[in-house]
Amino acid sequence: MEQPQLSIDIDRLMARIEALAALGSLDATEGTSGPDQKLGCCRLALTDEDKAGRDLVVTWMKDLGLNVATDGIGNVVATMPHSAGTWEPGTAPVMTGSHIDTVRTGGRYDGNLGVLAGLEVIETVQSAGIQLDRPLAVAFFTNEEGARFAPDMMGSLVYAGGMPLETALTVQGIDGAIVGEELERIGYAGAGPLPGQAPHAFIELHIEQGPVLESEGLQIGAVTGVQGISWNELTITGQSNHAGTTPMSMRHDAGYAAARVATFVRKLALEFGDPQVGTVGAIDLHPNLINVVAATATMTVDIRNTDEATLKLAEAHLGIFLEQLAHSEGVTIEVRSLARFEPVAFDPDVIDLVASAAHSQGLSVRRMPSGAGHDAQMMARLCPTAMIFTPSVGGISHNPAEHTDVDDLSAGANVLLSVLVQLASSTP
Amino acid sequence: MEQPQLSIDIDRLMARIEALAALGSLDATEGTSGPDQKLGCCRLALTDEDKAGRDLVVTWMKDLGLNVATDGIGNVVATMPHSAGTWEPGTAPVMTGSHIDTVRTGGRYDGNLGVLAGLEVIETVQSAGIQLDRPLAVAFFTNEEGARFAPDMMGSLVYAGGMPLETALTVQGIDGAIVGEELERIGYAGAGPLPGQAPHAFIELHIEQGPVLESEGLQIGAVTGVQGISWNELTITGQSNHAGTTPMSMRHDAGYAAARVATFVRKLALEFGDPQVGTVGAIDLHPNLINVVAATATMTVDIRNTDEATLKLAEAHLGIFLEQLAHSEGVTIEVRSLARFEPVAFDPDVIDLVASAAHSQGLSVRRMPSGAGHDAQMMARLCPTAMIFTPSVGGISHNPAEHTDVDDLSAGANVLLSVLVQLASSTP
Repeated sequence: MEQPQLSIDIDRLMARIEALAALGSLDATEGTSGPDQKLGCCRLALTDEDKAGRDLVVTWMKDLGLNVATDGIGNVVATMPHSAGTWEPGTAPVMTGSHIDTVRTGGRYDGNLGVLAGLEVIETVQSAGIQLDRPLAVAFFTNEEGARFAPDMMGSLVYAGGMPLETALTVQGIDGAIVGEELERIGYAGAGPLPGQAPHAFIELHIEQGPVLESEGLQIGAVTGVQGISWNELTITGQSNHAGTTPMSMRHDAGYAAARVATFVRKLALEFGDPQVGTVGAIDLHPNLINVVAATATMTVDIRNTDEATLKLAEAHLGIFLEQLAHSEGVTIEVRSLARFEPVAFDPDVIDLVASAAHSQGLSVRRMPSGAGHDAQMMARLCPTAMIFTPSVGGISHNPAEHTDVDDLSAGANVLLSVLVQLASSTP
Repeated sequence: MEQPQLSIDIDRLMARIEALAALGSLDATEGTSGPDQKLGCCRLALTDEDKAGRDLVVTWMKDLGLNVATDGIGNVVATMPHSAGTWEPGTAPVMTGSHIDTVRTGGRYDGNLGVLAGLEVIETVQSAGIQLDRPLAVAFFTNEEGARFAPDMMGSLVYAGGMPLETALTVQGIDGAIVGEELERIGYAGAGPLPGQAPHAFIELHIEQGPVLESEGLQIGAVTGVQGISWNELTITGQSNHAGTTPMSMRHDAGYAAARVATFVRKLALEFGDPQVGTVGAIDLHPNLINVVAATATMTVDIRNTDEATLKLAEAHLGIFLEQLAHSEGVTIEVRSLARFEPVAFDPDVIDLVASAAHSQGLSVRRMPSGAGHDAQMMARLCPTAMIFTPSVGGISHNPAEHTDVDDLSAGANVLLSVLVQLASSTP
């Protein structure tokens, strides 16, 4: 049953966000400009800064009397003890959580909000003396960002059984470090079993990292799933020629072919319609000179959709276009897949619960897919899962200027509170 | 009158090309690959290598008994002495020539051919005891390439009065060197008057540096003029956004706008038709990441036409397109002119002379514009001028792989011989 009068303590939550952000804090001038700068964070996974953040959060978990367990990939799950409730021993918890690692020029909310709001919800429930039928648990997963070690979402992927622990431990980072060695070094190579226990449900609060909620003046996103991602690198090989002396009909212009691909990707996204997106974010021409027809172009194509069949169709359309383009321009186009993730659909009941919790608190809400990847998409393999989004000012993230208004943080945490309490208040 | 039986000594010409190419010679592996590699050259203007090349050519000029004069910008003009002919003192010579500086990864024919073929023609005329009515002169002009000092065609531009000597002498190069200081250092700051004496006519033999002659199986190009050049740098400013979380309708994608410009430039060139050409050779996106909508794009647009009114129309079309694009995509586009040269039309009579000389030698010939700039376009300000092109294998130039078959070199030099002798054989 819902507890509408219950509310989180926003000052306590903000104090924890501040304290965690102080570890690995980043000068606001790095990576951004403008009057609205906030202090950023650099806590790359399994670095000394990450260890300091982990230690702080674990201290808070223990202060709340939670059972803290660390598994072999360094995921930390803090669960309400059996003594705190009326549930049977071994009852699967209702879990929330996210990650506390950041990108190199990260903000203070990405990931951290979900972990600290989970702690805040548990403290609120405990302080109010609410009796639940299932324990609550809050987790932080290792290396969600993938900024130091690939792949991203590593901890939750291993937790959900999507990657063997042994494989993850041998991954080498961009700085040469090995995951397993770094986990030992910082003291987070735990003994908890992997794959991890399936929770009763999983719900993650996260900033949107996009502009949709803010632009529509909404406070809460009830996240319906995570887009599938198809990343390809194209290498186009044409022929270098003098820009003045080579008639148009005799050119094999890799730069022109790259431009055609970029305009095709836009056309494809518009024709398929929302939520299809397509982006050419990187183009490198060679020799990249004003008066030389480019010999080669290397470029990336990022296409995403929430529906796997549609994403496959978009990939097929792109493939046909590239064949035609190579033929018409007399160039060769080599395609290399950089990443491919299928879309994830969240649980309709949990999504409904998020939307109704927001409504009942008088908050504006929309259902929306996530364009970015999150730990919740891995947990969705194990149990009914959804996410709650709060607005990102200007859609800015992975940037010290990342910001969410305190009212929106509070609203998001209160929706999380309501959903967790409801999910833990009745055993099926 | 024509001297059809007269012919240059191709072995002597090739020996001089070899000897000059040995100075500043470049390993064939630099800047190219393939089985057809030739030794390249690096003799950037006014370097020690350039001085060595100049000294060698001046020695050859003096060996032929020519009067060698160096002017204030280092142009060297070698003229048949008065004693060699029947002409009045002060009679304007019929001049040929080109340049001997190269780009950093240059070939052995670009420029050098025109200078050494000029020497070869004079030696042929002298050996045959031909009596001319005007002296022949052969020149090499300073810094045609512009690879070390801007602008290119500097020596001929100053010779023709298009740039004050004082301005040219203060130009600083990419390595910090000053033109005037470098001229003093290598001993080529001469006393000859500037602007220079107007020749009776000027004719330059040069490799095509493009693929047209080879692709049409022709041996000689009778060059009708030099294309006008319009170079602009565009800076497109959009907004950086997450490639997954930003709906297509909310994007201000500088990379997409750059691609639209590149496809427009191609469309413009095709609609205007030959000889209009248009090239986007350089594109730089920022931050240039696979999953980030580009915030800015810097790119170049190179458009050329032989007709000034048409070139202006093409520029106007581009300008209108950029305005519409900026509006539709919500980006700003800043345009900076990097270079603007009006087309140069060569002298119809001299062009006819080139074409008829080729025909009378049984050579295949076509009239064609030059897509690249040449010293002849500066000399055209002073006197009736034209150029002779010989084929470039694969259209390749500014590259150690630059190559012209020896039969074509011989044909080009013989056409030059015929044209120079005819121009010098009758005083008007």
